Amino acid sequence: MSKFPDSGESIFTTMSKMANEYQAINLSQGFPDFPADEKLTNIVAKIAKQNIHQYLPFSGYLPLLEKIATLTLRSYQRLVDPVSEILVTAGATQGIFTAIQALVNTNDEVIILDPSYDCYTTPIVLVHAKPVRIALNADFTPDWNAISDAMNQRTKMIILNNPHNPSGKIWSESDFLQLEKLLELFPEVLILADEVYEYIAFGNRHISVHSREKLKNRSIVISSFGKTFHITGWKIGYAIAPAHLMQELKKLHQFLVFSVNSIAQVAIAEYLDIVAPNTLYNFYEEKRNGFRSLLATSRFSLLPCEGTYFQVASYAAISNENDLDFTKRLIVDYGVAAIPLSVFYENKSDRKLIRFCFAKKDETLEKAAERLIRI
Amino acid sequence: MSKFPDSGESIFTTMSKMANEYQAINLSQGFPDFPADEKLTNIVAKIAKQNIHQYLPFSGYLPLLEKIATLTLRSYQRLVDPVSEILVTAGATQGIFTAIQALVNTNDEVIILDPSYDCYTTPIVLVHAKPVRIALNADFTPDWNAISDAMNQRTKMIILNNPHNPSGKIWSESDFLQLEKLLELFPEVLILADEVYEYIAFGNRHISVHSREKLKNRSIVISSFGKTFHITGWKIGYAIAPAHLMQELKKLHQFLVFSVNSIAQVAIAEYLDIVAPNTLYNFYEEKRNGFRSLLATSRFSLLPCEGTYFQVASYAAISNENDLDFTKRLIVDYGVAAIPLSVFYENKSDRKLIRFCFAKKDETLEKAAERLIRI
Ligand SMILES: CSCCC(=O)C(=O)O
Ligand SMILES: CSCCC(=O)C(=O)O
Repeated sequence: MSKFPDSGESIFTTMSKMANEYQAINLSQGFPDFPADEKLTNIVAKIAKQNIHQYLPFSGYLPLLEKIATLTLRSYQRLVDPVSEILVTAGATQGIFTAIQALVNTNDEVIILDPSYDCYTTPIVLVHAKPVRIALNADFTPDWNAISDAMNQRTKMIILNNPHNPSGKIWSESDFLQLEKLLELFPEVLILADEVYEYIAFGNRHISVHSREKLKNRSIVISSFGKTFHITGWKIGYAIAPAHLMQELKKLHQFLVFSVNSIAQVAIAEYLDIVAPNTLYNFYEEKRNGFRSLLATSRFSLLPCEGTYFQVASYAAISNENDLDFTKRLIVDYGVAAIPLSVFYENKSDRKLIRFCFAKKDETLEKAAERLIRI
Repeated sequence: MSKFPDSGESIFTTMSKMANEYQAINLSQGFPDFPADEKLTNIVAKIAKQNIHQYLPFSGYLPLLEKIATLTLRSYQRLVDPVSEILVTAGATQGIFTAIQALVNTNDEVIILDPSYDCYTTPIVLVHAKPVRIALNADFTPDWNAISDAMNQRTKMIILNNPHNPSGKIWSESDFLQLEKLLELFPEVLILADEVYEYIAFGNRHISVHSREKLKNRSIVISSFGKTFHITGWKIGYAIAPAHLMQELKKLHQFLVFSVNSIAQVAIAEYLDIVAPNTLYNFYEEKRNGFRSLLATSRFSLLPCEGTYFQVASYAAISNENDLDFTKRLIVDYGVAAIPLSVFYENKSDRKLIRFCFAKKDETLEKAAERLIRI
């Protein structure tokens, strides 16, 4: 009798394994195939010899907290207190898990916008709250009527993922205005803003919850150094929230992981002095443009991509298979791994859409495109 | 309305902060003040330049899993399958949290032996199960009558911490025989064995659940590289359990942290080739003996210490203050930080006992002892 309905292996794991098995080009799981910045790995090599190998304070290494505050001020003009409003987490996933379990109570409802990344449901269900999944519109914008209809006195939290995985959609000013208007009726409702792709927003048009005066005092914003610095393996991210919410996250955090890897924290604190995350979008915008033009002559039809390092494509003109079968065949017959979009939907419905990760070396993208245009 | 009754700052954090504030010698929170092994930090410096900065497989880096299996075989003659029976965790705390939330259901009861380390209760309460705390005997051996009386059809799990923090007590063969006899009546009850001090057992007399034929198929054993390799800041440990239990842990783990820091995993995998954890007890046995003889002329009375890097001492001959007041005064007036034992008890009862951590340089212990013998 398992507490968990699903098989227990996420699609990202399955697809990466299958890609390895068939030696396919892996555009499935979201991670870069290029090396981490040498400046950062040099810092690691240097600090490894320093005395940084014991517990850091459980909410984070103070210089790192201070530099996160500086970054938040610089990027979003939001002034946060390093000690009472920031928590360093063992990756964004742990930050999300912690925020949900610290703040959501039995019988509360939590709104998740469908399709969504797969880590939100488990922490909700474990504390006996109810995930309420509301479909996004076909263009991946929020469906305000449906969201408004779903809100009630039990609604505790809305989870917002912006820029959005898998679609690459970015919330507009008008989306935020609608949310703010709706939430005026629900003063107690919290926002969990999963902004892990915050610095991968093309044309730099990401609007963060940090900069929304009406929202930030009821929001927990989740960020990821793994995404921003091409080091997904380091598993380090952070949460920012007003002190009255943050204090609840911390109470749980210390009994969930206690603290976060010291090498990663000390290295990133130093790296933040010499790196400018705000220019990252240029790098990925070129990748996106390059990948899209490589596929221009293919039979895939590419959806808009405003942010993240994911490109969604329709294969409706190629095959009538469902998306899981199609992605498997794509690996076996063509040597390219992608993620079927159905896995992000509550009802797993097939829309003939798949997701490619373009956080890859140009030569990887070129080789993949060569294969994809032959289909 | 907080979900968490307590203040939210663990005693270890409070005491380490206060020790810093008063520049006291910090024998409170359990962490070494000597440097990590140069062989290990050299490995870190080397591998930082390698391509190891993206997600490792969510249950662990395969070479590390294999070396953990080798270590478990060598240390305990237990053959475990690296792929289906081992999970690398972001520290032992995350392993404990994950095991509890993955396996314990609403209304289940979980037996915790009192006094106990402070991370067991939160994951239990969050999933609506009930912690049932049973006092150990005055000599910190299990009280089998009390445990047996507490067991019932709702008992899901017994948490066992051996070697025991804070007391340094180690379970005897006869303790295990009693547990095994009792559990014959409860075929469904699981054991969560927190063995993070497994390699710090003097005279090397630690008996692991790994080596108990009658227990290991219903047990999750938690280990800590932080403790074993003097790198508490790295936050890396592991869980070992039979596949049918491990598969439940993994289902939760991937949505709780997904995976563990890649630098730590790759470094330890390489380090395990050149290090022998089984000889660690020698190192700490000398520390224990040294610290005890330094305090021989003090007015503290030292309890037996069979394992861990903690020494419990009674100050009944010195003061009538409660242990929290006494430890605070010890910092302020004498410049030595310790942990009051009351914080490990459910009812916080004062027994005029405090805990010193002796995982410190000889000169640190000498300086602390100089101050302590003056009291
Ligand atoms: C943690 S594995 C998934 C990585 C990711 O963010 C994605 O592929 O969507
Ligand atoms: C995680 S802080 C506490 C360290 C420790 O194990 C102890 O001091 O008991």
